Amino acid sequence: MPDPSKRTICIGLAGFGNVGAGVYANLEKNADLLRERTGTEMVVKHIVVRDPAKPRAIEPPAGLLTTRWRDLIEDGAVNIIVELIGGTTEAFELVKESLLAGKIVVTGNKALLAERGRELFALAGKTGVPIYFEAAVAGGIPIIKTVQEAFVGNRIESMHAILNGTCNYILTRMSQAGISYEEALREAQELGYAEADPELDVSGWDAAHKALILASLSYGFWIRTEDVYVEGVSELEPMDFQFAALLGHTIKLLSVIRVDGKKQVEVRTEPSLLPKSHVLASVNGVYNAVLVRGDIVGETLFYGRGAGQNPTSSSVISDLADAAVALANGARHTGFVPHGLYGKSKPLEETTAAYYIRIPVRDEAGVLSQVTGVLGKLGISIRSAVQPDESFAGASMLVFTTHEVASGRMWEAVEAISGLDCVAGRPVWLRVESMND
Amino acid sequence: MPDPSKRTICIGLAGFGNVGAGVYANLEKNADLLRERTGTEMVVKHIVVRDPAKPRAIEPPAGLLTTRWRDLIEDGAVNIIVELIGGTTEAFELVKESLLAGKIVVTGNKALLAERGRELFALAGKTGVPIYFEAAVAGGIPIIKTVQEAFVGNRIESMHAILNGTCNYILTRMSQAGISYEEALREAQELGYAEADPELDVSGWDAAHKALILASLSYGFWIRTEDVYVEGVSELEPMDFQFAALLGHTIKLLSVIRVDGKKQVEVRTEPSLLPKSHVLASVNGVYNAVLVRGDIVGETLFYGRGAGQNPTSSSVISDLADAAVALANGARHTGFVPHGLYGKSKPLEETTAAYYIRIPVRDEAGVLSQVTGVLGKLGISIRSAVQPDESFAGASMLVFTTHEVASGRMWEAVEAISGLDCVAGRPVWLRVESMND
Repeated sequence: MPDPSKRTICIGLAGFGNVGAGVYANLEKNADLLRERTGTEMVVKHIVVRDPAKPRAIEPPAGLLTTRWRDLIEDGAVNIIVELIGGTTEAFELVKESLLAGKIVVTGNKALLAERGRELFALAGKTGVPIYFEAAVAGGIPIIKTVQEAFVGNRIESMHAILNGTCNYILTRMSQAGISYEEALREAQELGYAEADPELDVSGWDAAHKALILASLSYGFWIRTEDVYVEGVSELEPMDFQFAALLGHTIKLLSVIRVDGKKQVEVRTEPSLLPKSHVLASVNGVYNAVLVRGDIVGETLFYGRGAGQNPTSSSVISDLADAAVALANGARHTGFVPHGLYGKSKPLEETTAAYYIRIPVRDEAGVLSQVTGVLGKLGISIRSAVQPDESFAGASMLVFTTHEVASGRMWEAVEAISGLDCVAGRPVWLRVESMND
Repeated sequence: MPDPSKRTICIGLAGFGNVGAGVYANLEKNADLLRERTGTEMVVKHIVVRDPAKPRAIEPPAGLLTTRWRDLIEDGAVNIIVELIGGTTEAFELVKESLLAGKIVVTGNKALLAERGRELFALAGKTGVPIYFEAAVAGGIPIIKTVQEAFVGNRIESMHAILNGTCNYILTRMSQAGISYEEALREAQELGYAEADPELDVSGWDAAHKALILASLSYGFWIRTEDVYVEGVSELEPMDFQFAALLGHTIKLLSVIRVDGKKQVEVRTEPSLLPKSHVLASVNGVYNAVLVRGDIVGETLFYGRGAGQNPTSSSVISDLADAAVALANGARHTGFVPHGLYGKSKPLEETTAAYYIRIPVRDEAGVLSQVTGVLGKLGISIRSAVQPDESFAGASMLVFTTHEVASGRMWEAVEAISGLDCVAGRPVWLRVESMND
């Protein structure tokens, strides 16, 4: 029974998959606590589903279900719309119509924000209706609130983050059990950590979308997807973990955000070698972590479950509580505050990194000199070289690490090396992150 | 120059020590960013100092300085008072008068809140004027905002935290360099990590104050200082770190907050053995960390600098930004929301823990059986025993770890053991934290 002494917020929940069902169940479970802490009754009035007849583990009253998201827009009593339907077309329409109807939006849709955030936040600014999206990045970790509110007075110098639990599970298993990418993916799928179609995760794009959002919030302009560098994890082989270990490193799908002296912003997501001794190297399984360096606060780390029904619904509920305040008192801001203090992405080819490169070569004389010749001609200096005695899948391997080099130069080198006669297959190259900046 | 298109908040800064000077300097340094992100000009109008003539590393315009904090209360233009004078008497008056005058309070004073938070938040509730205090706990780590806002929908199951950088520095050095408590303290003082009078830190009370605040926020009633269990670090010896290492553990000044099945809340701060493999065991030097378990979000960790001019001023500035929103739109809440969902502290003697106990004994026959006899009679079961061959400062040592036991029972045992003829000195006993709950 709603308590009549409390304000009521009326929620339209669009999407009742894993996270949507978690939001509904947890709002019920902890209703007493939320009522006391927020002074608000949070009432779910509609739930949009594809098939109302489908049996569900969490079964809301049938009267709440609808298949039309426009019902939520059209119901004048609904204050807040929670968008959890996913995708970027119907979800875009829903968010747009919500803002135009003056209904606050809470969303966990990172792809939508990454690809169309610029338009949506412009509309939020014009209508004065906020969008909340804590659940879009790093599940239950309150990193959006941290960047927007707790670190509001900080210039963000860099972030280094593990933002995709699926990939982190796969890489953890490849590293610890020595199994192949395919086996690790299959395991992740069996455990429910990976989708049947894992492409968005393993391509690196899910993490890249989250990094794009964090960078945009940090630097005050909405970054374009084409200015983000992304590499996935599907080409890694167990031997890469072995070589990395020899070099004192492990491999993580790492998102790096940083800004240079000219205020150009760099956003990359790629499998990267990390020193084993660094705290991020110990973030295993489905956990996420974000290391933030601010000019005032220094180095801080946030760690927790980056996905899953409960952690993600914790963030949605936090947004609902903030939305309740915004409804009662006026919003703090509309979700994203653009400004001109930075305003430019760094051209990808000018970004720099140290690299690990593994080259399958024919077992013949002069190979090393041919390969190092290419690197030398391009001015890429070698930090270390490993040439294991054993062969891998029939090929000998040459492994180098380089000093810091412009990425464009490195891509040129990989191209040139691939064309050498003595090279027997596609080189694998990975960033080596020293964690010193 | 203030931008006339922006709102202005007018700040009275009481205290210009390390943190106060940092707040002033960082507000200046990042004024452009704060203006863009908050839409607010943050103007410091008065600074309360003891001696205006004293030379300062950060030198504000002389016109801002005053020795009377009442100037801040009496100036109708001042909206927000930042209390950084410390202590619990004058600071109490200042905060009380601020609230009565309708001026929002931002404070970093953990002792004040721990000891007199109940009264102050009652007054904040009555006047409707909020108190912000992110800087009071864990320096730059936004743990107050996280507990109050991000985890608003979570029942907090437990927190395990390292909350005092001074003690953590001392214990890190004792563990890693094998030096004595006195040497490590002197080092900390030389590096500016410990005060000339380190009592508040090394007694455990500074960390205990912070734990009390976190627990009060989590469980909706203001916990009394007499319901908090506190032990300091000054009796630890290098050999305790050696024995802990033999047992696969390290020693940290650990604050533990947890709630039992009867909704009784336990708050303790004491040097504790932690498994070396646990992430908190790797939190070294002046860093702080808080591990929070929420019923929805699961396990999360927050890590950063727990003290110091810049990290702490990052939190003060975050509070100023929130205060600016409260001024413009109305406050979210007054700083602490009491409710009756928990409401009781667990009697200290009923709290349970596993223990490490080190007993200096005479080198004679029958010692082991006398000591184990006492433990057995009190129903305390031994998990492991170590009797090193060497002697330490002339005495032989007996080291036990126990299974979980009511703390009251353990204190009885220590009393009884101390009275045995074969015991040559005061036993040292420490909690052993398995980190499983």
